[in-house]
Amino acid sequence: MSDYSQDLKVKLFPVSTGKFVCVLNEIDAKEFGVFAGDRVEIENKRTKKRCVVIIDVTKDFVKEDSIGLFQEVTKSINANTNDKVNVKPTGRLDSVDLIKKKLNGEKLSSEELKTIVKDIADSRLSDIEASAFMAAVYMKGFDLEETTSMTKALIGNGKKINFAVKPIVDKHSIGGVNGRATMIIVPIVASAGLYIPKTSSRSITSAAGTADAMEILAPIDLSFDKIKSITKKIGGVITWGGAVDLAPADDKIIKIRHPLALDPEGMLIASVLAKKASVGSKYVVIDIPVGENVKIKDKKKALAMAKKFVEVGKENGMEIEAVVTNGDEPSGLAFGPALETKYAMEILEGIRFDNLAQKSCELAGALFELAGVSRRGQGFHKALEILESGQALKKMKEIIKAQGGKVNSSNQIILSGMNKVVKSTEEGVISKANVKALTTIARTAGAPANKLAGLMLHKIEGDKVKKGEVLFTIYAENEIKLASAYNYAMENNPFTFKKIILSTVR
Amino acid sequence: MSDYSQDLKVKLFPVSTGKFVCVLNEIDAKEFGVFAGDRVEIENKRTKKRCVVIIDVTKDFVKEDSIGLFQEVTKSINANTNDKVNVKPTGRLDSVDLIKKKLNGEKLSSEELKTIVKDIADSRLSDIEASAFMAAVYMKGFDLEETTSMTKALIGNGKKINFAVKPIVDKHSIGGVNGRATMIIVPIVASAGLYIPKTSSRSITSAAGTADAMEILAPIDLSFDKIKSITKKIGGVITWGGAVDLAPADDKIIKIRHPLALDPEGMLIASVLAKKASVGSKYVVIDIPVGENVKIKDKKKALAMAKKFVEVGKENGMEIEAVVTNGDEPSGLAFGPALETKYAMEILEGIRFDNLAQKSCELAGALFELAGVSRRGQGFHKALEILESGQALKKMKEIIKAQGGKVNSSNQIILSGMNKVVKSTEEGVISKANVKALTTIARTAGAPANKLAGLMLHKIEGDKVKKGEVLFTIYAENEIKLASAYNYAMENNPFTFKKIILSTVR
Repeated sequence: MSDYSQDLKVKLFPVSTGKFVCVLNEIDAKEFGVFAGDRVEIENKRTKKRCVVIIDVTKDFVKEDSIGLFQEVTKSINANTNDKVNVKPTGRLDSVDLIKKKLNGEKLSSEELKTIVKDIADSRLSDIEASAFMAAVYMKGFDLEETTSMTKALIGNGKKINFAVKPIVDKHSIGGVNGRATMIIVPIVASAGLYIPKTSSRSITSAAGTADAMEILAPIDLSFDKIKSITKKIGGVITWGGAVDLAPADDKIIKIRHPLALDPEGMLIASVLAKKASVGSKYVVIDIPVGENVKIKDKKKALAMAKKFVEVGKENGMEIEAVVTNGDEPSGLAFGPALETKYAMEILEGIRFDNLAQKSCELAGALFELAGVSRRGQGFHKALEILESGQALKKMKEIIKAQGGKVNSSNQIILSGMNKVVKSTEEGVISKANVKALTTIARTAGAPANKLAGLMLHKIEGDKVKKGEVLFTIYAENEIKLASAYNYAMENNPFTFKKIILSTVR
Repeated sequence: MSDYSQDLKVKLFPVSTGKFVCVLNEIDAKEFGVFAGDRVEIENKRTKKRCVVIIDVTKDFVKEDSIGLFQEVTKSINANTNDKVNVKPTGRLDSVDLIKKKLNGEKLSSEELKTIVKDIADSRLSDIEASAFMAAVYMKGFDLEETTSMTKALIGNGKKINFAVKPIVDKHSIGGVNGRATMIIVPIVASAGLYIPKTSSRSITSAAGTADAMEILAPIDLSFDKIKSITKKIGGVITWGGAVDLAPADDKIIKIRHPLALDPEGMLIASVLAKKASVGSKYVVIDIPVGENVKIKDKKKALAMAKKFVEVGKENGMEIEAVVTNGDEPSGLAFGPALETKYAMEILEGIRFDNLAQKSCELAGALFELAGVSRRGQGFHKALEILESGQALKKMKEIIKAQGGKVNSSNQIILSGMNKVVKSTEEGVISKANVKALTTIARTAGAPANKLAGLMLHKIEGDKVKKGEVLFTIYAENEIKLASAYNYAMENNPFTFKKIILSTVR
């Protein structure tokens, strides 16, 4: 293409595209020798401001000798209605060559990954380019070095909260299971004098995320300053990570990963640890549930991932304990935001103690041992003591109050009046409760968008059940959803019964 | 998400995005449980028209309880300013699961590829999804069956010209080299009573494409009807493929392939053969240049590709002869649209005969043999006869006239007055002319956007050269480009001289 085009009349569109894109008429594109997807530098003749943009080509959307500018570009070159710009060729973006390199199966260096992450963060890569990168990472994987580099790159492109207190600890669970361990762990850990500024997420595939659940009790879209002051004062906070833009590059990467659910291990580890690093976490426990119906299905794979977490954490200044847990059984009996929250509060209140409470104390205990609060082997007992003494409940009430919440006891949480019990059509001992089927029932009933929807188990693995006994109650958003959740449950029995005679030959 | 959302006020943006996209405020997105990149069905409450769209999420671009619609969607649901729509969840698009399948290394069936191609053609896949597909095909490849299926899918999604004459023949060259064999082959072939409706492309990386070159002589953006009538009457036509939308799916795929130059073999074969099938070609010659500086660098790979072309052609009703040619030496002496056109006309006029003329006669001869016009081994001679007799020139003049052109002899083609010779600083025999370096010089001088720019060789491989003798002349768009092309030539000598003493040790 020519060095500089003739002047093009700008046509401003008051639309934000999230990208630096301009539209040329196909006649001009042909003349300049550019194709859709190519990059050029444009210059506003009046303001002399320049900007590199990706070209889109149209037959009729903009006329010949014109160029269509969207808000990002309009702002960047400070364009007005009567301005003219010209167009100049620009070199290939380094990132594009690096993405091709990864597509060709080559390893990327730390500097190279930094370049790509920076361009994603700055919205310089098109969706086509960024998606090809993610597909390459999905298919070729990241080795340990690349995972470490990716983590560093994400950290380098994020914001950081400096709490000026220590030690900061954190926990994270891979893959959505039911049960809100976080709501039990955070107050236990904070009670022991550790600082745990927990940023949590909303549900994507489960019946509730911790952010969805915590919202029952208190506001979760807290500012930087609020997170900082509550953590310093009370030791713990449970917020929605989406409200604070801690890892903008990672958020953009997640947007690219979402449509095809691309979750390459290395990317997942980098994404989790970058978020931990952004709040200055020093000690982190990672919970990796393994089971037929959760993200990680294979124990060997889970162990390999656990080791990678520890190594990459070390390279980024964190001490990590990654634990592989049983993802085949429900964590507690509740599914759905309100139900899971009520349930977690009941554990804090000492009304219940079950596998969710046990797991929460084990993970809190692991943090105590990592941070040197307890000796090896003593963490669990300390956590249990804090839970049973009521200190954790007291701390949780402080956290709720500090976040501006008013609901602070399980009996304040009202469940949906639109509910229906599911009874057993068999007699015997339950050998398995299918978490995925239970989740689908809860989601069909309206969870997590409807906070009150979900289900509560009355029976669990190992329980003896008589015909006609209640297995679980479905709580729904409305009658239609109740019926469709109930029908789903009838057609997809989430319980398996122990059988002695497996098959009979006559 | 809920079955139906509450009503959302439409906000219309008079902007075409080429995709079915809507924008929701992040608060509404959260409430409905949808994420950026998710699909939903929207319904216009007034017109009852529905449409499946991809959601984008914004903080402030549209307000709460509103939905931003772009032109495609506005039109599809017939929306007015005061309309309200609601949003309903929709199932995952089958194509998305199929793309994931390919990403996981599984083979896709004919039906599955048809589904993906249809969704690309109908703009139902986002850039993120389509790019992940192309990356998967690039990394995992297409086997013979998939290549055949892809070809069929592209053909099924394209338009067809039925010429009602036969046989239709065609030729195609993989990878841009210089020299316009097409402009010599088409009139030779048409002179023998065969029909060759050649749709050609513009240059992407070379100094000129056939479309860029033919445009010197005649208009190339011919309509369907025009292509049809000229072919029927004269036997040959040379048009720009971009002007007739013969393979809309393929054009969209090329847009996805372009930014990262993803050219997986199977996709390339499908793309070429679908275009040939769209004009009803029965006999096709494929030219696969092999060399250090062209697309295919390895002869073994070229032969494998040649075999695949033949097989996939057979499955799609075409008889193909794929020839592997020497891509290491320039085809003729010209680089650039006007220069290459003048050169090709001189061959037709009998002023020159060289390796480009030889190649053109060999390829035309191959078509004669394929179509049964000549016996095996006799095609080249027939082609040569037609060229030498002046019949091909006469036919070319008819084609130019039929397309509405006025320039029909080499001496009517004026070259750029802005030119400069490059002289040899060495003495010896030229052992190699680097096509890539020569192309870069021509492009630096302004080709192909500037039609007159390019370069003309005075010396070629095997020639004996004295110090100070002219090697080539650069023709440029302007003084600045002339200087920069000249400087490039000085720094990157495109000629290698034969050396007897390769190195000396003292």
